[in-house]
Amino acid sequence: MKIIDGGVTAAKGFQAASTAAEIKYKGRTDMAMVFSEVPCVAAGTFTTNVVKAAPVRWDQDIVYNHQGARVVICNSGIANACTGEEGFGYCRATAEAAAKALGIPEDSVLVASTGVIGMQIPIDRIANGVTAMAPNLKGTREAGLEAAKAIMTTDTEKKEAAVEIEIGGKTVTVGGMCKGSGMIHPNMCTMLGFITSDVDISKELLQEALSEDIKDTYNMVSVDGDTSTNDTVLLLANGQAGNPKITEKNADYEEFKKALNYVNTTLAKKIAGDGEGATALFEVKVIGAATKAEAVTLSKSVVTSSLTKAAIYGHDANWGRILCALGYSGVQFDPEKVDLYFESKAGKIKIIENGVSTGYSEEEATKILSEDAVTAIADMKMGDAAATAWGCDLTYDYIKINADYRS
Amino acid sequence: MKIIDGGVTAAKGFQAASTAAEIKYKGRTDMAMVFSEVPCVAAGTFTTNVVKAAPVRWDQDIVYNHQGARVVICNSGIANACTGEEGFGYCRATAEAAAKALGIPEDSVLVASTGVIGMQIPIDRIANGVTAMAPNLKGTREAGLEAAKAIMTTDTEKKEAAVEIEIGGKTVTVGGMCKGSGMIHPNMCTMLGFITSDVDISKELLQEALSEDIKDTYNMVSVDGDTSTNDTVLLLANGQAGNPKITEKNADYEEFKKALNYVNTTLAKKIAGDGEGATALFEVKVIGAATKAEAVTLSKSVVTSSLTKAAIYGHDANWGRILCALGYSGVQFDPEKVDLYFESKAGKIKIIENGVSTGYSEEEATKILSEDAVTAIADMKMGDAAATAWGCDLTYDYIKINADYRS
Repeated sequence: MKIIDGGVTAAKGFQAASTAAEIKYKGRTDMAMVFSEVPCVAAGTFTTNVVKAAPVRWDQDIVYNHQGARVVICNSGIANACTGEEGFGYCRATAEAAAKALGIPEDSVLVASTGVIGMQIPIDRIANGVTAMAPNLKGTREAGLEAAKAIMTTDTEKKEAAVEIEIGGKTVTVGGMCKGSGMIHPNMCTMLGFITSDVDISKELLQEALSEDIKDTYNMVSVDGDTSTNDTVLLLANGQAGNPKITEKNADYEEFKKALNYVNTTLAKKIAGDGEGATALFEVKVIGAATKAEAVTLSKSVVTSSLTKAAIYGHDANWGRILCALGYSGVQFDPEKVDLYFESKAGKIKIIENGVSTGYSEEEATKILSEDAVTAIADMKMGDAAATAWGCDLTYDYIKINADYRS
Repeated sequence: MKIIDGGVTAAKGFQAASTAAEIKYKGRTDMAMVFSEVPCVAAGTFTTNVVKAAPVRWDQDIVYNHQGARVVICNSGIANACTGEEGFGYCRATAEAAAKALGIPEDSVLVASTGVIGMQIPIDRIANGVTAMAPNLKGTREAGLEAAKAIMTTDTEKKEAAVEIEIGGKTVTVGGMCKGSGMIHPNMCTMLGFITSDVDISKELLQEALSEDIKDTYNMVSVDGDTSTNDTVLLLANGQAGNPKITEKNADYEEFKKALNYVNTTLAKKIAGDGEGATALFEVKVIGAATKAEAVTLSKSVVTSSLTKAAIYGHDANWGRILCALGYSGVQFDPEKVDLYFESKAGKIKIIENGVSTGYSEEEATKILSEDAVTAIADMKMGDAAATAWGCDLTYDYIKINADYRS
């Protein structure tokens, strides 16, 4: 597997464009289009929130019931969530505009929105944006990069990743972009991920690979514990690599899954590290758990604990809060067996052993916790299962962004 | 039912004392003693955290397996949590000191601690504190009030409540005090509640009344979603009111439960409104739910949502965040049926009807949300069940208290 510089246009036959449609933001791009030169197989995973935004319901229908996806149209600024039938109608209108501009079927158009909840999108501006982008589609590195910028909301950095693998003597590329900062934010909102690949694979296996992989990647990210109405990950595969088509779970499938996992993990960590107001990526590894499910529950309980997140912001080796968050997770364990470590670029330190303090150096612990990416490792000593969750510290700026956004 | 000014000494035959034992804090009281002149029946509810502090394990044994409780010894500053067998030994040593000073059995002594996790308590100072308090026990209003101050940690106000009811022609009093600010805080920590009553009641019914009532009171409070290792509510009843003993679930039992509910609700709301850094009490009422359990889940999901809490701090009628938090609670409902209101001393306003905005006045909504106690009411229109949860806004000071506490 070779890590390369790239995003949604890295794989063969994919193009991107972006434009400033003035949907809500001024003076920046706010629409992106990701286009495949040939029909794709598409897979998707969507928010589990009972309140699903219109584009989520539109895409679920396209991914589950239609063939030959060609394009994703995404806007930032307005989420098209809690907008009733009128909002759903605007998804159709967007698809119509894209179909006309690109000469493709309406049911090959996927849509995604991120931004304010409860406000209708200005469909004329969306349609104009689509018309403006269509002739500018390019397969260049620059076009992918600009698309990654256009979908940003409170994100402070564009988020892209790409890798190359070899399958049956052919180079297969998986690349993607995402946005997400607060899990949901009424002015900006939502985690969106768009992954493209030139792999040749059956629709069933593409969906299965994605559905499995998000459990270990995007689903292990928490910025604030709030699950958006718009969360969407779309994965398009257009077969242009010319690899022997993957139709069973063989070594080729495993190789593709590794590439997909690298792209998704990289993007997920970028979302966590760029959490609203965050100064540090906070990684929680639980090892020695009895089952994978318990490892997931334990690691997520720590990564979502407000007190732990505030302690990370304070560069404070506050193991009591971590042990406490493990304790209220709902998983049974013996607190007097737990070992806990902190790790970062600056080193690794054992903080508690068998549930009590090791008498570690506070100075050394603070040094380790002062890096911009820190890891807590909890060894439950109950079995062999492990899980990793990603989040960020809880800071003054999180409050500022979410309470004072009108100022 | 008559609301009276009072706390743990309001009921007949209860005395209190407090002292500055210098366990960790300087220049303030940090120990309290609540004493009954005669043996009590005792009930208790304790943290569900797998990691249970030593005093929790001590009290569980006393409440479940012993008769005739006489005294509660509480210290602030150090939590005696994650302290292993040594910490549990200190509970026994505290009981020994109290037994000696008061001339009562060791197994009639309850203990409680709140403060830093992972540090051993200085047992000599605790024992000296017990010896100092014993001769100063008084049944006065002042003694109760001073006890309520001594157990405070990050609390900004002492928390007391008391009521009188009449049972069989006799005046029965229920009074109490509590502390709690962050649900857990490593330097300070924990929700503790001590309720006293002169009611004559069987141990079984006392426990049942408490166990039921905390579901609607303390268990509906969330400051930060973190469940402490030390959370404890103790209820002592000494029978000194002389009422016909309550041994079955008759009208007298119901009357006592109402009084207990008033005291617990009042204390619970005081904890929520005094959450770390809070500027407002945030109440969430869910009505029209299909079941009580679903109403509880829905209301707690909203009251613990960081984004909603930050919006309350910003006086922002951010209904999208509330609908979203209802949506990810795990309860199934039709988003296009939900009505939402905001209410405070300044008025009541309908924000959404059937899942979409009513086109309310933002100015009026902001005015309502600018009070120091605000209520969100969500009508799910699915049935008759309701629940109320209490929390607070999420502010800069929460971060300051929990990240920068060393400064």
